[in-house]
Amino acid sequence: MTIAFQGERGAFSELAAIEYFGGKHKAVSVAQWEDVFTGVEKGKRDFGIIPIENSLGGSIHKNYDYLLQHDLHITGEIYLKISQFLLANKGVTLHHVRRIFSHPQGFEQCRIYLDGLPSPELLPVSNTAAAAKIIKDQCLQDAAAISSMQAAIDYDLRVLARNIEDNKENITRFLILSKKPFRPATTTAMKTSVVFSLKNMAGALFRGLSVFALRDIDLLKIESRPVKGKPFEYMFYLDFAGSELDTPQRNALNHLREITVFCRVLGAYPVGRLAHPEYKKR
Amino acid sequence: MTIAFQGERGAFSELAAIEYFGGKHKAVSVAQWEDVFTGVEKGKRDFGIIPIENSLGGSIHKNYDYLLQHDLHITGEIYLKISQFLLANKGVTLHHVRRIFSHPQGFEQCRIYLDGLPSPELLPVSNTAAAAKIIKDQCLQDAAAISSMQAAIDYDLRVLARNIEDNKENITRFLILSKKPFRPATTTAMKTSVVFSLKNMAGALFRGLSVFALRDIDLLKIESRPVKGKPFEYMFYLDFAGSELDTPQRNALNHLREITVFCRVLGAYPVGRLAHPEYKKR
Repeated sequence: MTIAFQGERGAFSELAAIEYFGGKHKAVSVAQWEDVFTGVEKGKRDFGIIPIENSLGGSIHKNYDYLLQHDLHITGEIYLKISQFLLANKGVTLHHVRRIFSHPQGFEQCRIYLDGLPSPELLPVSNTAAAAKIIKDQCLQDAAAISSMQAAIDYDLRVLARNIEDNKENITRFLILSKKPFRPATTTAMKTSVVFSLKNMAGALFRGLSVFALRDIDLLKIESRPVKGKPFEYMFYLDFAGSELDTPQRNALNHLREITVFCRVLGAYPVGRLAHPEYKKR
Repeated sequence: MTIAFQGERGAFSELAAIEYFGGKHKAVSVAQWEDVFTGVEKGKRDFGIIPIENSLGGSIHKNYDYLLQHDLHITGEIYLKISQFLLANKGVTLHHVRRIFSHPQGFEQCRIYLDGLPSPELLPVSNTAAAAKIIKDQCLQDAAAISSMQAAIDYDLRVLARNIEDNKENITRFLILSKKPFRPATTTAMKTSVVFSLKNMAGALFRGLSVFALRDIDLLKIESRPVKGKPFEYMFYLDFAGSELDTPQRNALNHLREITVFCRVLGAYPVGRLAHPEYKKR
């Protein structure tokens, strides 16, 4: 079995895939988030993993758009504790560092630490593991990368500083994607993700949410995204507790379909656990 | 009177400021969005203008965060039609173009046009006007910029292709910021923006929205952002029709304050118009 993830070896998406699948399946790197979706859709990969939300940065909106554009099912989720490390080639000390590579979110998450340095140049790259790969491949002696501890091991880099993120409550939620829906067992705590659009009228969203509130169903997340070609109309993405196996949830979804213009269940899946990544030589 | 905008001369934010203030006030360029907020907060500038939402790309979430972090009032809004142009130095033809500079959103908005070119290198910069400035300042002969028509005039560049955006329904909404609230006149159609957080309990958001629905107040926009340090709790940003000058709206806000943990009115302001930028030699 193979799982597609975006980024280089050592990327947080790969660490999340390893935690979720327990290392039994092979994680395969792709260049773009959308490649994760198309790889699974075309049957080249059995599963895909994408980041959907970070506790500091918020939702990864592009991936919400892709969920709508591609015909896949969410079959699981996992929460990964994110810790950032400043990495450099052997022999390089903090004193030599004039440039730092990372993903823009990496810089954003380590602002306080970066403010304490003598203004190095910050160079954005496509993901934090790519930053580690660049300084290694090019043997850079004046540069460092903000990346994961796993990248330090994978690219044989030195750790200049550890846990440099401003806020320790730094958690990313990842979704598992598959062509086939998850076959839910009633014994597991489940969650359902749904996307819908409403008639453009007063009270429409309130009415949409009422189908859950009236049945005491817990709403876990709401996100809105623009409808292309219809300025300032929105698609709403909701996560709620339970699944269609439960009668109130089944009724709520039927009720929702009555009052929406468009409605699609993106997936029903077991509530994810919080994983602290294990770093391993490999 | 001065208005701070982010980006180089010719940026869409500057065009929006000119449309909003009718060219009577001086628009002053700053480097970062946050500089717009701090400039107004410290009294260096009378007004600030920020993009908050694009009809294709969605909300500019960072600016929602800054609205919460800074103690300013929204006093107005304007919607600007966005058109993208491919610009180059005099003498450069499409045939010479190996590299294209723009803001990532500029590339995103012109995907179909870009797919028709023989894969030029795409180089992201901080805003579309900066892209025009770079090719001009460095006299680049193998490069083009995706930018505004105003940037073509300001930097004396040649237009290689016009209106290259995929979707013509491309509109950005801008907010006007000031230290003092807008003094509303009852004769104008008004809108109010509010931010709040809720107790983490089932039905909380439904209850929050009910204060508007029960009074037939139209909700125009909802956006959620993470609360830092409290993983997977959210701040909600709502825009609704009317202002506290209207009794139902005043009652709804009082009701909202009863049931929220935190609640702040970000501003009440006249509903904005849609402007098509005028391009002028200056």
